[in-house]
Amino acid sequence: MTNFLTGVSGLTSNLYSAALGGSKFLMDMPILATTTEVEADEAIVVAGVLLSLIVIYLASKIGGEICVKINLPPVLGDLVGGVIVGVSALKLLAFYEPGDESATSLIMNLLEKTTRLEPEAIAATFQAQSEVITIFSELGVIILLFEIGLESELKELIKYGPQAAIVAVVGVIAPFSAGTLGLVYIFHTPLIPAIFAGAALTATSIGITAKVLAELGLLSAKEGQIIIGAAVLDDILGIIVLAVVASLVKTGEVEVTNIIYLIVSSGVFLVGAILLGRFLAPYYVNLVKNLKTRGPLLISALIIAFFLSYVGAAIQLEAILGAFTAGLVLGETELQKELEEQVVPVADFFVPIFFVVVGARTNLGVLNPSVPSNREGLIIATFLITVAIIGKVVAGFTVLQEQTNRLGIGVGMIPRGEVGLVFAGVGAASGALSDSLQAAIIMMVILTTFISPPLLRVVFREVVSEPEKVEG
Amino acid sequence: MTNFLTGVSGLTSNLYSAALGGSKFLMDMPILATTTEVEADEAIVVAGVLLSLIVIYLASKIGGEICVKINLPPVLGDLVGGVIVGVSALKLLAFYEPGDESATSLIMNLLEKTTRLEPEAIAATFQAQSEVITIFSELGVIILLFEIGLESELKELIKYGPQAAIVAVVGVIAPFSAGTLGLVYIFHTPLIPAIFAGAALTATSIGITAKVLAELGLLSAKEGQIIIGAAVLDDILGIIVLAVVASLVKTGEVEVTNIIYLIVSSGVFLVGAILLGRFLAPYYVNLVKNLKTRGPLLISALIIAFFLSYVGAAIQLEAILGAFTAGLVLGETELQKELEEQVVPVADFFVPIFFVVVGARTNLGVLNPSVPSNREGLIIATFLITVAIIGKVVAGFTVLQEQTNRLGIGVGMIPRGEVGLVFAGVGAASGALSDSLQAAIIMMVILTTFISPPLLRVVFREVVSEPEKVEG
Repeated sequence: MTNFLTGVSGLTSNLYSAALGGSKFLMDMPILATTTEVEADEAIVVAGVLLSLIVIYLASKIGGEICVKINLPPVLGDLVGGVIVGVSALKLLAFYEPGDESATSLIMNLLEKTTRLEPEAIAATFQAQSEVITIFSELGVIILLFEIGLESELKELIKYGPQAAIVAVVGVIAPFSAGTLGLVYIFHTPLIPAIFAGAALTATSIGITAKVLAELGLLSAKEGQIIIGAAVLDDILGIIVLAVVASLVKTGEVEVTNIIYLIVSSGVFLVGAILLGRFLAPYYVNLVKNLKTRGPLLISALIIAFFLSYVGAAIQLEAILGAFTAGLVLGETELQKELEEQVVPVADFFVPIFFVVVGARTNLGVLNPSVPSNREGLIIATFLITVAIIGKVVAGFTVLQEQTNRLGIGVGMIPRGEVGLVFAGVGAASGALSDSLQAAIIMMVILTTFISPPLLRVVFREVVSEPEKVEG
Repeated sequence: MTNFLTGVSGLTSNLYSAALGGSKFLMDMPILATTTEVEADEAIVVAGVLLSLIVIYLASKIGGEICVKINLPPVLGDLVGGVIVGVSALKLLAFYEPGDESATSLIMNLLEKTTRLEPEAIAATFQAQSEVITIFSELGVIILLFEIGLESELKELIKYGPQAAIVAVVGVIAPFSAGTLGLVYIFHTPLIPAIFAGAALTATSIGITAKVLAELGLLSAKEGQIIIGAAVLDDILGIIVLAVVASLVKTGEVEVTNIIYLIVSSGVFLVGAILLGRFLAPYYVNLVKNLKTRGPLLISALIIAFFLSYVGAAIQLEAILGAFTAGLVLGETELQKELEEQVVPVADFFVPIFFVVVGARTNLGVLNPSVPSNREGLIIATFLITVAIIGKVVAGFTVLQEQTNRLGIGVGMIPRGEVGLVFAGVGAASGALSDSLQAAIIMMVILTTFISPPLLRVVFREVVSEPEKVEG
């Protein structure tokens, strides 16, 4: 019975406070879930989540519209809007960090003033709200990659697969070797931290690139498909590179079994899901057509997308690889167009959360030159950024096919995004990185992430206008 | 810098484990957010949320399709599907309860087997996952009420307002007085617990009724608008009744200022939001038409809906009242049709989560006759259920207008849903309720909630077929 009572959710727990005119009385109710001091009141968490979503959407819309006005890609608006409302500036959108009980955000302050949030419940409420927004943002990138997969052509991806593979491999080897060797010989960095920094240079943020390509209407173009293919492979290569580097640092040798497991499992997963998907697709289409309740197509497609995302995460790959694969498989069916239309509003809901949160979490403090290690870092960062850009551009030029925007492909691989941060995080945690090298890596990640959207636009301007000319 | 590093979200933290081949090494990384023992790893929480969503959607779809087959409303399928996957049966979908660290769910067991979830992190992961799903379900009912508001006609609601008000007031007074007096005189229940039980009889769950009406295509019919209007007023009356009862129990007298505040604030909120909304609507339509980034209509509408929901919650009313009002206001604009189309997929995503979670949280243990207080409760429950149904049906018959399905209106007010549970919760927490009375109230809530969808269908069958006859 108690169990059933605690099922009273926060939705209606506002009623309590209305009834009781405060929360003092609530403290005497041990039977209710919302009454212990350290627990967050669900209704207040909901209010906090609603405020966070309002801030995120306002940042995304205002940033995006300004970017459109000055001819920049809207996703840059999401990122910059996120920085403005995030930890670096307004602190409207901040995130709970374990151990830092005093951390808060303007939204929490507002909640404290406008709801019956008690001071002792602030930490728990802030944590719950941060958790929910974080999961929302991760669902955002999962749904983004699902949508990208839907819009991608499996045939095209396979057709350009070998070229994408070369781009991915060169795009990993070139910046890794140039970065590591450069740090060792020019900056006299010890080998281990140099290897970490080199590894951080190999990542590609598929989310940002794919979003810009979609905005430019280039996803289904040859270049778009090569970039998407290469970025997917790069994501897998990134997981493997990190595995190699981390086991090297940890044990001094490479754990070969783990590497083989990663290579085999990613191959089996991608190929297996696609083959199984193609085999099951007709049954699926048939099933969906016979469903009579609301949203049969969308919900059944999401079940598949979430299932493959879960499998991707469970076999230690990434959830987004599963979502992309699900999109790819469902995009081959006759329901593709209808499904795409229904996914659009869901993506509109979730995807901006991802990009605004990436911006909001970016601490521009590393760019502050009054901190000594930042000044040192700035010099190393200049080198890393140069290598980061040239390394990927070189990879783009390995594409042999005629009439291809090779520069565009290289530029498409530039943004390191959240993947680059993982390398910096693991490196910092291992204690191998000096403060200045760490700051330099973060600067490199920020810069490559933020310049890629406008750069992509510049290098693809010609291609976008070309077909029009041909048609004319 | 540390701040930036902890910004590394769970999305990519799978990379860590891939790289490090386990989580032992992670324990040595104090700098990372995901490493302390008590904190949940975001990537695993995401995996848990994905699995929960898969279970919710499967329960909703399978339950809904079966209900359609046997000619019952699909929302009953959500509720029953939820019961089956929830705490009463399969325990796939369970919810963390503070203090009960050992509580878990089958999904958590699966996560433990398929991810690197450590035993000591289970409680934190379970809590985070429960929190996220709870907030999702609350967004579900917020978006449902927003959609209902969009589909409702303000003009019709005002037209039938006086009748709806009478239905609401009688629907509160009749079951309250009959329930309280019956308990005191027939069952010799002391006055205070009898008042609590009587108060629990006054609630109406607008969500369940509105969903069934929408499924029957009756939302914009006269009866639908009277029920929606009465349910909205009933929600406000419920808040006031609870305030009266709780302050009566607490201090022995009624806090008049609090009651006046609730009446005035709800009136000002509803009328103010509608007037202000109508005034601002042309500017809003104009703004939306000039936006160039993705999803201008949906996102701007959600900003308004979430803002009013937040205000509703902040002034101690309910978030869903704000969402309903936002829908009502935006439904008056020329963009209504387009907006409704875009809200549908978002509602398809969120709304089933609400109903399945309501089912999943329902503990059918109270119906177990081997527990002594349940046997006693069963007799009282029979009385309460009778009063609950007759009280609302009587209210329906106060509608004077000719050619109205009065029985249908009364039946539409029957489901107590989550609102009834709040009364039971407050009553139990105050210590006023005996075990058997508490069990009886919960049985009443369960039964009225689960029988209303099929009952509504039966009493509205004639009306639905009537217009066809007229047209023929």
